[in-house]
Amino acid sequence: MSAEIIDGKAFAAEVRAKVAEHVAKLAERGIKPGLAVVLVGEDPASQVYVRSKGKQTVEAGMESFEHKLDASTSEADLLALVDKLNNDPAVNGILVQLPLPDHIDEDKVINAIDPAKDVDGFHISNVGLLATGQKAMVPCTPLGCLMLLRDYFGSLSGKSAVVVGRSNIVGKPMAQLLLRDSCTVTIAHSRTKDIEDVVRQADIVVAAVGRPEMVTGDWLKKGAVVIDVGINRLPPAEEGAKGKLVGDVDFASASDVAGAITPVPGGVGPMTIACLLANTLTATCRANGLEEPEGLTA
Amino acid sequence: MSAEIIDGKAFAAEVRAKVAEHVAKLAERGIKPGLAVVLVGEDPASQVYVRSKGKQTVEAGMESFEHKLDASTSEADLLALVDKLNNDPAVNGILVQLPLPDHIDEDKVINAIDPAKDVDGFHISNVGLLATGQKAMVPCTPLGCLMLLRDYFGSLSGKSAVVVGRSNIVGKPMAQLLLRDSCTVTIAHSRTKDIEDVVRQADIVVAAVGRPEMVTGDWLKKGAVVIDVGINRLPPAEEGAKGKLVGDVDFASASDVAGAITPVPGGVGPMTIACLLANTLTATCRANGLEEPEGLTA
Repeated sequence: MSAEIIDGKAFAAEVRAKVAEHVAKLAERGIKPGLAVVLVGEDPASQVYVRSKGKQTVEAGMESFEHKLDASTSEADLLALVDKLNNDPAVNGILVQLPLPDHIDEDKVINAIDPAKDVDGFHISNVGLLATGQKAMVPCTPLGCLMLLRDYFGSLSGKSAVVVGRSNIVGKPMAQLLLRDSCTVTIAHSRTKDIEDVVRQADIVVAAVGRPEMVTGDWLKKGAVVIDVGINRLPPAEEGAKGKLVGDVDFASASDVAGAITPVPGGVGPMTIACLLANTLTATCRANGLEEPEGLTA
Repeated sequence: MSAEIIDGKAFAAEVRAKVAEHVAKLAERGIKPGLAVVLVGEDPASQVYVRSKGKQTVEAGMESFEHKLDASTSEADLLALVDKLNNDPAVNGILVQLPLPDHIDEDKVINAIDPAKDVDGFHISNVGLLATGQKAMVPCTPLGCLMLLRDYFGSLSGKSAVVVGRSNIVGKPMAQLLLRDSCTVTIAHSRTKDIEDVVRQADIVVAAVGRPEMVTGDWLKKGAVVIDVGINRLPPAEEGAKGKLVGDVDFASASDVAGAITPVPGGVGPMTIACLLANTLTATCRANGLEEPEGLTA
């Protein structure tokens, strides 16, 4: 174990404090950012996330609007709610918690959100804006990873970065963000040949595949900085117990080789909601024609 | 010189013939694809392009609508024309020739085009759709490169590809297309360190930087397939003469090492307009709820 631990929990607390500070300044102008979170159905994990989001939103001094809909809600009714929130000036950010029940078209719902209020950054307009280097709403998890990396390195220009995983939610936007910050970016995935060798080239490794402890120490260049986006629960050791939470990186072996590494839990995880709050603040500033807070956007 | 020459000129003719064949079938249903090209001002290069586009559109059996506007045309008037074309059922594809005069906001004009008619694939919605793996209109030049590569390799899955250049028009959409076809994709650019070493890893090299003969043979892995997007005119040897046309790849040294390579001219160049016609056909099929022609889209 030689790697520096990147403390995402502490950094997320700093981000939230910065957001709260800006929110307090907005209050002097009579502006209170509002985040609407829509939950359809009773998925237990989603309920936990939505509760955390609501709690942290309020703690940052913002207004939290929770809309809990029955699992049988029709797509039309959900779209009608999105439309109402789009037109509600008290709502600056709209987040529809995924996954949605099977009878609802997720893409349709996400693309019905006003892009300016799309604090998850999943609307195709925001994806397109990010990909073309324009002002966008940026997905929260990759934004959180970017903040940790910028904090560690200062400038990312010229660093070689490998993103393992090509999801629309993490891998692909992460690659766009690293490219925008002038990294040389490689996207590796399940079809990549000799993936260990590819990863071993990189100064920066972002693992976002959802496979427990896939990236081991021997995949890493000495001194590489490793950002572990994975959150996987291992099978429990004994019946009735809870399995251990691990990332996509094998922390024990990786931390012997890496220069710095995010732990799981306590690394990227806490950054996601912090960035959701940051995005809501950014959306509020843009909606009011005010300057955006520094260091809280891409 | 050992590399196979990838004959883009011949391949583009095949693509145009395929398009013409489909257009003839559409004619039996009383459908005639229409492409509107809008040119603002008198830029000589743009005039040449627009003339070629119009000619090849007609040769493929499609309707060509040319709109030549004065350089002093206001943004509002241009937007009004775009709106008219959006609502004209005879127009299936709209292309606004770039660059536009300085007093007109290019992004605003491009994003005013109906995404379904955006045959250049530059609208942020199409960029977002491409980036998320959904059905999009794909930019013509990278689509042409993809067709050449698919024709050469069959499947691209698992190949390592380096795209040199990160423009919104070529480099970035090219990377998305290669990733969609399951290549391991690296994007290199002006800030990339040891760029020769990065390029030397790749089975596929797409050069799109606009720097004459930058990529030389010693940058290449033996047998790599090289797609040269660059079109650069060297300073003429004597006054009054025309300079030689070269790519971003040094053809002489590269063709000693590469397994296959596109020449300049006669490589990627002819593919761009062929893919514009293919996109117009695709847009027409989608607009009419008909099956898309095989092999002409990403």
